[in-house]
Amino acid sequence: MFVLFTDFGLEGPYIGQVKAALWQGVADRPVIDLLSDAPPFDPRSGAYLLAAYAAAMPPGSLILGVVDPGVGGPRRALAVEAGGRWFLGPDNGLLAIAARRAGEARVWQVDWSERGISASFHGRDVFAPLAVGLARGEPPPGSEVARESMIGADWPEDLDRIIYIDRFGNAMTGLRAAALAPDAALEAGGRSLARADSFFQVPPGAAFWYENANGLAEIAVNQGRADRALGLSVGAAVRIGTGSISED
Amino acid sequence: MFVLFTDFGLEGPYIGQVKAALWQGVADRPVIDLLSDAPPFDPRSGAYLLAAYAAAMPPGSLILGVVDPGVGGPRRALAVEAGGRWFLGPDNGLLAIAARRAGEARVWQVDWSERGISASFHGRDVFAPLAVGLARGEPPPGSEVARESMIGADWPEDLDRIIYIDRFGNAMTGLRAAALAPDAALEAGGRSLARADSFFQVPPGAAFWYENANGLAEIAVNQGRADRALGLSVGAAVRIGTGSISED
Amino acid sequence: MFVLFTDFGLEGPYIGQVKAALWQGVADRPVIDLLSDAPPFDPRSGAYLLAAYAAAMPPGSLILGVVDPGVGGPRRALAVEAGGRWFLGPDNGLLAIAARRAGEARVWQVDWSERGISASFHGRDVFAPLAVGLARGEPPPGSEVARESMIGADWPEDLDRIIYIDRFGNAMTGLRAAALAPDAALEAGGRSLARADSFFQVPPGAAFWYENANGLAEIAVNQGRADRALGLSVGAAVRIGTGSISED
Repeated sequence: MFVLFTDFGLEGPYIGQVKAALWQGVADRPVIDLLSDAPPFDPRSGAYLLAAYAAAMPPGSLILGVVDPGVGGPRRALAVEAGGRWFLGPDNGLLAIAARRAGEARVWQVDWSERGISASFHGRDVFAPLAVGLARGEPPPGSEVARESMIGADWPEDLDRIIYIDRFGNAMTGLRAAALAPDAALEAGGRSLARADSFFQVPPGAAFWYENANGLAEIAVNQGRADRALGLSVGAAVRIGTGSISED
Repeated sequence: MFVLFTDFGLEGPYIGQVKAALWQGVADRPVIDLLSDAPPFDPRSGAYLLAAYAAAMPPGSLILGVVDPGVGGPRRALAVEAGGRWFLGPDNGLLAIAARRAGEARVWQVDWSERGISASFHGRDVFAPLAVGLARGEPPPGSEVARESMIGADWPEDLDRIIYIDRFGNAMTGLRAAALAPDAALEAGGRSLARADSFFQVPPGAAFWYENANGLAEIAVNQGRADRALGLSVGAAVRIGTGSISED
Repeated sequence: MFVLFTDFGLEGPYIGQVKAALWQGVADRPVIDLLSDAPPFDPRSGAYLLAAYAAAMPPGSLILGVVDPGVGGPRRALAVEAGGRWFLGPDNGLLAIAARRAGEARVWQVDWSERGISASFHGRDVFAPLAVGLARGEPPPGSEVARESMIGADWPEDLDRIIYIDRFGNAMTGLRAAALAPDAALEAGGRSLARADSFFQVPPGAAFWYENANGLAEIAVNQGRADRALGLSVGAAVRIGTGSISED
């Protein structure tokens, strides 16, 4: 399976061209739009999202991660084999957390010919042809490098920030729920929020956090929008608290 | 064919994960995004939309209808065989109108193991695996129940409300045009609107209603947006009038 | 490959129904959403976009171009064979530039039965069945007509207007970069803009133009939104200047 994780937006002509490039190379393989609205130009938030969501993709998946503000500049392009999946993308941290959590990972710095390559659309011109080659069983074109050389290799295990706001106003954090104490409170937007198992445990309008379906701690409001109620946006700080929790 | 009818939004990581779950089970079957922006948390509007749009899907389709504000709570999960198609979704009325219009329908209450099931994402964890099983020819896992036990079994044949606003500002009602008198007027947003066959029959800026390509009565403005011109939003009342029609 | 170029929006039930119609006819052929948010009701802007983006689609593609404000009226439906690809759509100029640039092109006026055809959704009811027939090797149902009879046959080679604003605020023009002098300036939004090869050549906040990944001259701001910074929207005039260039 090819999997696309990008900040391209579904609107616009970008995703379609990447799919055309993939299907020209390998006609009968499905392409999943896992996320098309990753926070734009923000590989750090994207890294923690990608690590949480890639884990739900089947083994053997070829995952193109393209949040790439440095496209056309000197940043490296990488191919990472980790946890039975391939991750392809720029060396800006986007792939680093997924690679680390997989335990074993091998990393290649990809070489590509400059001929016919645009300066602004490596998703189509570099990463899609690379995915096609790997899908055909070819080795990555380039040289293996140390995993520690990846940008983001020194980033924390979990990120105490809001990394995504979904359509319903729920605010995902970069914290895995399993890494938090069962009674941990999360402080965000000036409020201290207790954990709940589901929306049904809290009254309408109440804010809380819960473990979302991909293991992230997510801040929500029952029958409301957490982003507006708490003034949260991508990048906002989240603090892990304990002890008494105030709810107003 | 798998068909998705949801309020998940195309943005976000939800549709992609459902597709991955479907294609992991049955690799070579197309998945149609029939509607991804059904009115959120509003299974009643969705029920009349789904009934109108499912009729255009080919026989044999497996239709996942997921507008599910009660996910994680005690609501039942259903599998409905109706009109040569399968409908899978929560028992909150969403499937009720499609089931009734199909004439004959059989309804199963679905049992599923709680193991590995998230409390918030039954589209991926319950309904997608159920669709995969049905696509493989397995019987629905659960017990057959009376169609009359479905939530929404007592809802009206047609709904005199706005149920969807499209990209162009056209306002779909829950009324089938075929159920209205040929000269019926629709009253909405304080105006009485006559029927037209097409946009070409009315002057620019004029509001009217017509039978849309799926049989619903839809309120439109030639070269304009009906939602703004008439102050319409999902849930707004529509009254069926007759006789003299005023246009201002 | 089937390719969709429309102003339908990805939201709403329109794209899904076109795909269902295509896959009912030819089950195993991929469908690419090349562009779903072409400027609405604006076949002229769409014509220059389609010509630039269709060139990236593989030979043999069947491209449905549906920006169709005249649907249900007397406008003709066309099938155009050009450059090894098929273009299907209304005769309102949308296909004209792609047909002309391909050099040789054959044009058919399509006949269709009125039975079962909606007045408002020819993407599903006319152009999708037509694409299915062509994919099966059938000839276009209708009579060949002169290419010069196409609406848009007399439109200019390049369009000195903004034709699309992307998710990031970049403003595409209808001008091919290859048709401009290497030192040409573009005047838009009251500013004169120099060319750059990439975003890295200009300081943050600076506006410039560059050749985008599909050959169009595109106006951008490094780490900013060109549409807001320069007050640009689709249809805005762009003037080709030379000589001294002022930047403020």
